[in-house]
Amino acid sequence: MNSTDEKDISKLCIHTITTKPWKIEEAAQHFSAAGVKGISVWRDALEGRNVKQTGKVLLEHDLSIVSLCRGGFFPSKDLNKRKSAIDDNRRAIDEAAELGAPLLVLVCGADPSQSLRDSGKQIQDGIGEIIPYASSAGIRLAIEPLHPMYADTRSAINTMKQANDMAEELNSPWVGVAVDVYHVWWDPFLEKEIKRCGENGHLMAFHICDWKVPTADMLLDRGLMGEGCIPVRQIRSWVETAGFTGFHEVEIFSTTHWKENQSEYLRKIIKAYKDHS
Amino acid sequence: MNSTDEKDISKLCIHTITTKPWKIEEAAQHFSAAGVKGISVWRDALEGRNVKQTGKVLLEHDLSIVSLCRGGFFPSKDLNKRKSAIDDNRRAIDEAAELGAPLLVLVCGADPSQSLRDSGKQIQDGIGEIIPYASSAGIRLAIEPLHPMYADTRSAINTMKQANDMAEELNSPWVGVAVDVYHVWWDPFLEKEIKRCGENGHLMAFHICDWKVPTADMLLDRGLMGEGCIPVRQIRSWVETAGFTGFHEVEIFSTTHWKENQSEYLRKIIKAYKDHS
Repeated sequence: MNSTDEKDISKLCIHTITTKPWKIEEAAQHFSAAGVKGISVWRDALEGRNVKQTGKVLLEHDLSIVSLCRGGFFPSKDLNKRKSAIDDNRRAIDEAAELGAPLLVLVCGADPSQSLRDSGKQIQDGIGEIIPYASSAGIRLAIEPLHPMYADTRSAINTMKQANDMAEELNSPWVGVAVDVYHVWWDPFLEKEIKRCGENGHLMAFHICDWKVPTADMLLDRGLMGEGCIPVRQIRSWVETAGFTGFHEVEIFSTTHWKENQSEYLRKIIKAYKDHS
Repeated sequence: MNSTDEKDISKLCIHTITTKPWKIEEAAQHFSAAGVKGISVWRDALEGRNVKQTGKVLLEHDLSIVSLCRGGFFPSKDLNKRKSAIDDNRRAIDEAAELGAPLLVLVCGADPSQSLRDSGKQIQDGIGEIIPYASSAGIRLAIEPLHPMYADTRSAINTMKQANDMAEELNSPWVGVAVDVYHVWWDPFLEKEIKRCGENGHLMAFHICDWKVPTADMLLDRGLMGEGCIPVRQIRSWVETAGFTGFHEVEIFSTTHWKENQSEYLRKIIKAYKDHS
């Protein structure tokens, strides 16, 4: 599909952080007016708000609430910090339930003062510990493998294979995987692991953006689809072949794009979604 | 080993780029005076010099010339550029031979306008094409897998497994692998793939430094061993268990360290080598 007019946007979801300068109510209004059908909510966007009421506002704008971002950050050498992380994840599950989001995305964390293997074990233990709480609340948990450049502090789960392994070991209908093209595009086993993820019923979310060439900042220089070198459309085809029918979530942290007029930027997002994903 | 005094530095090699502010002749003099036994030479350090004569200077300082950095950058959508890359790699092999370096390190390259698979094929074809030339010159070629954050333009070979696979497929005594802790430390299969590399006689070089937490720049903010979160000593033990007996090469690009007094920095390098590798 090459023409902007041909492709429908009924599966387009946008993360609140993508249009960070907008308050969540503004984002909901603009997304809805533009025909966007899904929204994923970052917890900072809920600060100082009645979460249940905010969820209602989103639904009134005819938006599906796709996920809450984010829980996780389980590992620490310090047992008390690990306990606090569990508590925070329970709070995130509560927020997801109040908001009406069926899925909590997990950025799993890593403690650079210990081995990645130890951090990995603590992640698995941490998720195992919150599964009953998530299940009671009806909230699914998605392990998001993060790019290896975040292995120091953000996640000890850096490939789809690791995420799949962990989801299979935890063996719960409440635990799956979130695929973000930014983190996994380079992986020679990506197609195979996406297939495996789908076959096991673990493919719970699909995030899109692009890898800019060059990338100026390790965290805040993501590109719009088409601005970089990630074969977004190809990865989407793998995800769909694996049976995924959910939303395509645009998640972009970008100081450059945050400086733009956000209405204009929203138009670019929709065009990029149509042309390059 | 915890004490700075206990560990000998007979396997310590330093890359010219590590102490970039020094001309190669200065570096040789300082390294030698400090008891460093090996030097790896970056091609920019040879600019405007008689390469053979420079090699002699290094030997006169009782330095083993460990490797020349770097060849590679094979992929391009453009056939003429691929041909130019082959020519440049032949020149690099000539330089290595003139210098007296037995090994050329390959940063393999990637063209973001095509798939990583296509870039990978062009890398393998390119190395295949220069093997006879390398063999005639007596120069070995080491494929260096690069961190996935460099998959856009610097290398389509991003894991030890990919490098091992390629070295095995090329199946030449002149082709092996260079292990750099910075690029591979996050990989859950690292120990296994280092073992495999050694068993196949492909383990040709070992580069050390550290991953700073946080890392401010994707290219020029590497740390001294001990300044970050890489388990350098553990990876060294894996490399040695795999049969590697060569030099431990300190390769650090760091605008921070380049600003220091380089004599003072050299003392820090030696201390970091003794204490953390």
